[in-house]
Amino acid sequence: MKIKEATTGLYRVPLRNPHADATHGHMNQVELVIVKLFTDVGIEASGYAYTIGRGGAAIKALIDQELIHLLLNEDPRYVESLWEKMWWQLHWVGRGGVATFAISAIDMALWDAIAKAAAQPLGAILGLHRDRVPVYGSGVDLNLTLDELLEEVGCFVERGFTAVKIKVGKNDPEEDLERVNAVRNFLDGARGRGRIVLMVDANMRWDVPKAITMGREFEKLGVLWLEEPLIPDDVEGHAKVANALSMAVAAGENLHSKYEFKRYISAGALDIVQPDVVTLGGVTEWLKVAAIAEAWNLPVATHFADEIHVHLLCAIPNAMYLEHHAYRLDDYLINPLVLKDGYAIMPDVPGHGVYFDETKLTPIDGVK
Amino acid sequence: MKIKEATTGLYRVPLRNPHADATHGHMNQVELVIVKLFTDVGIEASGYAYTIGRGGAAIKALIDQELIHLLLNEDPRYVESLWEKMWWQLHWVGRGGVATFAISAIDMALWDAIAKAAAQPLGAILGLHRDRVPVYGSGVDLNLTLDELLEEVGCFVERGFTAVKIKVGKNDPEEDLERVNAVRNFLDGARGRGRIVLMVDANMRWDVPKAITMGREFEKLGVLWLEEPLIPDDVEGHAKVANALSMAVAAGENLHSKYEFKRYISAGALDIVQPDVVTLGGVTEWLKVAAIAEAWNLPVATHFADEIHVHLLCAIPNAMYLEHHAYRLDDYLINPLVLKDGYAIMPDVPGHGVYFDETKLTPIDGVK
Repeated sequence: MKIKEATTGLYRVPLRNPHADATHGHMNQVELVIVKLFTDVGIEASGYAYTIGRGGAAIKALIDQELIHLLLNEDPRYVESLWEKMWWQLHWVGRGGVATFAISAIDMALWDAIAKAAAQPLGAILGLHRDRVPVYGSGVDLNLTLDELLEEVGCFVERGFTAVKIKVGKNDPEEDLERVNAVRNFLDGARGRGRIVLMVDANMRWDVPKAITMGREFEKLGVLWLEEPLIPDDVEGHAKVANALSMAVAAGENLHSKYEFKRYISAGALDIVQPDVVTLGGVTEWLKVAAIAEAWNLPVATHFADEIHVHLLCAIPNAMYLEHHAYRLDDYLINPLVLKDGYAIMPDVPGHGVYFDETKLTPIDGVK
Repeated sequence: MKIKEATTGLYRVPLRNPHADATHGHMNQVELVIVKLFTDVGIEASGYAYTIGRGGAAIKALIDQELIHLLLNEDPRYVESLWEKMWWQLHWVGRGGVATFAISAIDMALWDAIAKAAAQPLGAILGLHRDRVPVYGSGVDLNLTLDELLEEVGCFVERGFTAVKIKVGKNDPEEDLERVNAVRNFLDGARGRGRIVLMVDANMRWDVPKAITMGREFEKLGVLWLEEPLIPDDVEGHAKVANALSMAVAAGENLHSKYEFKRYISAGALDIVQPDVVTLGGVTEWLKVAAIAEAWNLPVATHFADEIHVHLLCAIPNAMYLEHHAYRLDDYLINPLVLKDGYAIMPDVPGHGVYFDETKLTPIDGVK
């Protein structure tokens, strides 16, 4: 199997539920960069990168200008070799950021080709541990009133989710505690099969003393994890917070290589590992981070990109949760993720199954 | 002073002396992304990013699509505030790589505007320590025969340089030692004012045991520093090499934020700090890295971008060497760097003085 042609498309798509977090403010759209690979055996494969609204044109430029020519006439099964070539091709302007997103989209397409050639779902060629994973309902809800927040959480419960995450990071810490307390009480009133788990996400908003102070309060309310209390550059800070708290510290969406995860994990700065296949470097790099996490006896809970992460979490022993993100791409997907009884089901289709309905996407040419 | 307009240009320029190193192979061109800012007081300022041939289109896309609109109607003197805005604007796809290069070009232009408004050379508004800095002749010469290598080194000596760096990282370590030994002997025969200093650069080619083994041999030959023995992600590895050797370990061109330098420096993984204003995030970030280096009692020796680095090294107490890089942009500059008696002289012009002669540059539109 050889790659004969590759194309890219850049799209800006409105989000179904545009809300806010403590750092990024209101977000109402994502960009998608979709890569398609066409092979000499008739297999067409695809992968994508998303952004939170900025950087898509640069990702497309890297793929078009610097990476596609490395793929032509290559066998997608040599994904480790191609990944290394792409990493070094972009090394001077890479090792994270835009370069990582560009590599991710292509790597995802290479794995799609491998799985399609095997006529297997992606998870099945990686070595399955299960065929479904528990999901948690993840709100991007810092702008919601308390009533709206409880309504959102109520929807998660009605859909059978056994865990829920809300945003924290209000200017007034009392307001954060009031909201977390109200949601905890609401969940305790609503529980059916057992106590519904609650997590919180500060989106890098705090410093170490505030993270520990707030974390101690959240512990009293039985919150499972505190996500991204600090900026991702502060490894030592995360380690201090993790050491000070009995509750778990979680992070990962802003870590862009196995090296960044290794640094966090070996420093004892993470209790729960949250890799995102798009922001990390694709399936190839994601699996390595999951292996490092397993060796350190840490569970993996993914960030966004639910539809492809279901394959990856089904293929590792240390899977914890799939994030069912408030930002849904369902409207644009041919096969939206199927949920059942609080679980996401790995789709039984060849490849990763994350294919966009192009009739619903309007390409942009990089000019706003 | 307000920024009223900003433009960018992408250029690919052939190098006068295309040679090879241990990792990047042969390089025969650089890309330039030049940013120009036009203000309401008639001041025109500029900055640039270079690449080693890949990524220029993506850098231009980030500046054009995501950053320029943040600058319009802003006062360039608020460079710390604008830097922070740019960092967070690109944070999701940033924290290094392409995003850093884009921020660098703009930051350099902002400082150019500030210095021009003050009718001072850039160094003078930063607080001068000196008006000239020692340079070393830096070869990109792994592909040269031994005779050609000695000829190159001879040229450096004739021009009055008191220090010389050559590449190492040949497949055969004996060949590396033979070359270093020959250059050391040549320099000892040529010395005038004192022993000419020799440094070597492995361009990330080795692992820890090889770096220590080779370093012990270089020590016997009186080599001052071993540069980039390992990949930049391996902080612990650099610390092991630095601890094992009496000679200095130097690195920095591949570190893209103050956070990366802080990690290296606080881990004792660097003896000589080599920030590059283009790969690091501009003048603003460079000055912070120099301050961290000073607090750890470490000297600064810059990488490439000689013409602007002369200002920065003149403005810090812990300046060691300016790299006079084999890759010269002199052919394209209106005011090439002036060297005298082994020193680079800070130009006495308003701004940073690094202005390209556009009649010699042909813009490319991002398509190869």
